[in-house]
Amino acid sequence: MSRVWERVAVVGTGLIGASLAGAARRSGRFAHVVAVGRSQANLDTALRAGLVDETSTDLHGAVADSDLVVLATPVGTAVGQLAELAPIAGPTTIFTDVGSVKKTLVDAAEACGLGQRFVGAHPLAGSEASGAAAADIDLFCDKVCVLTPGPNTDPAALAGMQELWEAIGSRVITMQAEAHDEALALTSHLPHMAAFALVLAAAKTHEHLPLDDLVAGGFRDSTRVAMSNDAMWSSIAIENRQALLASLDSFSEVLNTLRVAIEAGDAPTLARLFREAAALRERLNQ
Amino acid sequence: MSRVWERVAVVGTGLIGASLAGAARRSGRFAHVVAVGRSQANLDTALRAGLVDETSTDLHGAVADSDLVVLATPVGTAVGQLAELAPIAGPTTIFTDVGSVKKTLVDAAEACGLGQRFVGAHPLAGSEASGAAAADIDLFCDKVCVLTPGPNTDPAALAGMQELWEAIGSRVITMQAEAHDEALALTSHLPHMAAFALVLAAAKTHEHLPLDDLVAGGFRDSTRVAMSNDAMWSSIAIENRQALLASLDSFSEVLNTLRVAIEAGDAPTLARLFREAAALRERLNQ
Repeated sequence: MSRVWERVAVVGTGLIGASLAGAARRSGRFAHVVAVGRSQANLDTALRAGLVDETSTDLHGAVADSDLVVLATPVGTAVGQLAELAPIAGPTTIFTDVGSVKKTLVDAAEACGLGQRFVGAHPLAGSEASGAAAADIDLFCDKVCVLTPGPNTDPAALAGMQELWEAIGSRVITMQAEAHDEALALTSHLPHMAAFALVLAAAKTHEHLPLDDLVAGGFRDSTRVAMSNDAMWSSIAIENRQALLASLDSFSEVLNTLRVAIEAGDAPTLARLFREAAALRERLNQ
Repeated sequence: MSRVWERVAVVGTGLIGASLAGAARRSGRFAHVVAVGRSQANLDTALRAGLVDETSTDLHGAVADSDLVVLATPVGTAVGQLAELAPIAGPTTIFTDVGSVKKTLVDAAEACGLGQRFVGAHPLAGSEASGAAAADIDLFCDKVCVLTPGPNTDPAALAGMQELWEAIGSRVITMQAEAHDEALALTSHLPHMAAFALVLAAAKTHEHLPLDDLVAGGFRDSTRVAMSNDAMWSSIAIENRQALLASLDSFSEVLNTLRVAIEAGDAPTLARLFREAAALRERLNQ
């Protein structure tokens, strides 16, 4: 039995919010979507692309009438919006989000009395692009979406969100918010920090060396995600700071192991570590 | 006036050596190529693919008869081979290489009396794939090839190598070996170390978390080069150790700046650094 959400407020019409709105409308799961945002240009883009039915800059008004509220704002903003909107929404309104950090959202929902009605979601999709102009209604097809119910999440609300993501082609995984955040720190947040840092480190000497001519495919791939949205990523880094700091330390430890072997000219150790990394990475291609 | 190299020994028939042999034969610049290697299977692959005319496991015999010797072995191996082959080759034989580190090669050529006849070359092409099976005769089209003449390199030898690389579609840049190595440490060697380290850091906790399901596109791109050949890369890391250690330190410094801002919850600083990195990285797409 699949639920159609009659009136959905999608708060934030960036790449993920706009794509979700469009995908869920196409699948018939969202009957009517009100896009809420601060940038009228971005809202207009979403509307013109047929991804949403209506736009609004009145957050409270849009939420008051909705049976589902999707927070698709930077994760730190979403945390604040949960608390702000809890008293505005109707008593049966379900809240969800799409952010890359889950524990602070789950905790915030508990704290503001939305524990039963909040289902944290994180679609592992998207790219370095941002804004409604980059939206793609096939973005979530064959992608993983992680749901992180809190201790008090209503099983029906969880099932409803699972149905929604499956209807738009995603494979749903359910896990604890904390485990999600630890894993994503390693598989996503840390690689983003590394990409930003690689570009900044290269740029330090840029005035002295003709780096632009000397950038090969490896650098381009390794640093593609350094083009990601700065507000979104500073929010992620701070909201998941505990796990991210731990993975930065873990990364620094490995880098130091490599450094010591390089300094010592220890080719066998380096080759063994590189071989180990290659084998682990190759598994992901299978 | 373009020179045809009548008899070329390509030592090492990995991705770069085999691709260069095939590309230069197609362009008519190599009349006859003897591929030299230790792996008969790899040599056979190159021969069957029509990339080379002949294979040999007799390095000295192949080099003695050649007017051009291309060292396409790991850079540390190539350093040793220069000294080994200097007394074997004819008095006018030109030596070149294709490695990602240039200063140690230039120095080795000087030291063994090949200073006039060695032209270091580094095509910025290739990928994480390796072996003759991955060869592609279009690999160097529209790619940069850096030539790093030493203090005594014969201008005619340098011009000959420039013609060769341009004939197979590359854009040739000439620069000092040391400047090349410093730049490549940042644009290639450091990103490879980061990719290896990202995979190894993620793998540390792999037994506890279902990381495979939680790996998105960002991680895949950021760590693609971690599938690169371990022998080649341990050799590069060690042969360019001075510049690579400096860039690892520079990278660690930036990572630490990010770490401090994350720990302090300093969103404006993070956003500013991410924005700066994004702008620098975007320039590479233009």
